[in-house]
Amino acid sequence: MFIISGKGTIIEKRPLARKLSAFVALSDAELSVLERLHKRRRTFVAGRDLVHQGQADQAAYILLSGWACSYKLLHDGQRQIVDFQIPGDFLGLRSVVLHVSDHSVEPVTDLEVTEVFAADLFEAFAQTPRLATALLWTASRDEAMVVEHLVGIGRRGAAERMAHFLLELGNRLTLVGLGSKAGYDCPLTQYLIADAIGLSAVHVNRVLRQLREDGLATFRDGHVTFDDYDKLAAFADFETSYLDQLGPLLK
Amino acid sequence: MFIISGKGTIIEKRPLARKLSAFVALSDAELSVLERLHKRRRTFVAGRDLVHQGQADQAAYILLSGWACSYKLLHDGQRQIVDFQIPGDFLGLRSVVLHVSDHSVEPVTDLEVTEVFAADLFEAFAQTPRLATALLWTASRDEAMVVEHLVGIGRRGAAERMAHFLLELGNRLTLVGLGSKAGYDCPLTQYLIADAIGLSAVHVNRVLRQLREDGLATFRDGHVTFDDYDKLAAFADFETSYLDQLGPLLK
Repeated sequence: MFIISGKGTIIEKRPLARKLSAFVALSDAELSVLERLHKRRRTFVAGRDLVHQGQADQAAYILLSGWACSYKLLHDGQRQIVDFQIPGDFLGLRSVVLHVSDHSVEPVTDLEVTEVFAADLFEAFAQTPRLATALLWTASRDEAMVVEHLVGIGRRGAAERMAHFLLELGNRLTLVGLGSKAGYDCPLTQYLIADAIGLSAVHVNRVLRQLREDGLATFRDGHVTFDDYDKLAAFADFETSYLDQLGPLLK
Repeated sequence: MFIISGKGTIIEKRPLARKLSAFVALSDAELSVLERLHKRRRTFVAGRDLVHQGQADQAAYILLSGWACSYKLLHDGQRQIVDFQIPGDFLGLRSVVLHVSDHSVEPVTDLEVTEVFAADLFEAFAQTPRLATALLWTASRDEAMVVEHLVGIGRRGAAERMAHFLLELGNRLTLVGLGSKAGYDCPLTQYLIADAIGLSAVHVNRVLRQLREDGLATFRDGHVTFDDYDKLAAFADFETSYLDQLGPLLK
């Protein structure tokens, strides 16, 4: 078995450690508690849900590689995608502390994850309360993103909403080393984006063409290119502070 | 100074203790740590914001009495109300763990609150990690509510959205002893409701009349009456599990 040792190595290898480091300067002891959460490795193929709306006793998962989406189904069959998850994100963290999961999680691509049970989390919190604070941070940041999506659907026009969506993903991916101000690889279909931002797939296509023709961003062949990052950010009124990536608040 | 003693008394007197008890069976030691968070009592008059979007070093507040609303302003002056807060809720819990607050909180009525600084919370977590888990629960439940609001604005018709909104508030108020399946006192104006559920005030008025004429619910003179709770819940496709009020998961 391959043993990971050394603080730099763990932060380098684990997107979650890298992400949490944006909030709390993790000590060696905290990193090794976090590392022990990574013991049950599992894989899921695209299309097979790993968290199920309405079910009890759900595990959570730490996403190691691949993309997923969290969504809710209404009784009439409509679906609202709440968010997409990228490496370093928790899948179903909420489901662990609620009696039954309020949402489902579906792989967008094949996934590598680590399975985490409620008891693992509570034990880790007891060992290092700062880790509990760090997880409260990830939950708060996730909530801040859902709030932005609510504001987007409630108040932003279609093109601004799309621009905001592409920028948010770019900034999140940059935090875990998978994107930059130049752009990022993106496996999402126009149908998935449509279900997330509340437009039809046809409308998504039209809005993406508009952003491309205006020289702002191009989404083509699984890659998003920021043709003019600053102009796009100004157009979307995109302000990064809710993503809280400024560096550790807790030293 | 009045000293609160005894587990029953604290749970009775403190809406937050009552609410957290829905998730974790709080021990005497945990209750007294929670009680120590209640040391800086403050009052705010209606209309004076107590959490400010874009500001750093924000305190959080535990709401003891009164109603508040959390909202975001866009650059063009539009406002989206994210949620209303009732006794037992945190105001600005997210703002404490993010570098700058992503939202503002405004009193709807005069408020009695307890001010809590980040350091108070982290100290409490170190003393009783189960309290950290309980706060992760409140943050998760808050997030589950924002997700429902996103689904509401994204997918529900105006009347269903209003019905869902009235039912959610009723269930939350019931948890802290301020409502029942018969109804509850509600200080919200139609303008506030409009900014929350993404309708115009005129539309809010029309939808409330429809619910009343259909014998489902009546909102009049600061009181919501559930004329037929079960029919209203069926109409709204309202399913309470995301509010997670089934009793403690953590014994």
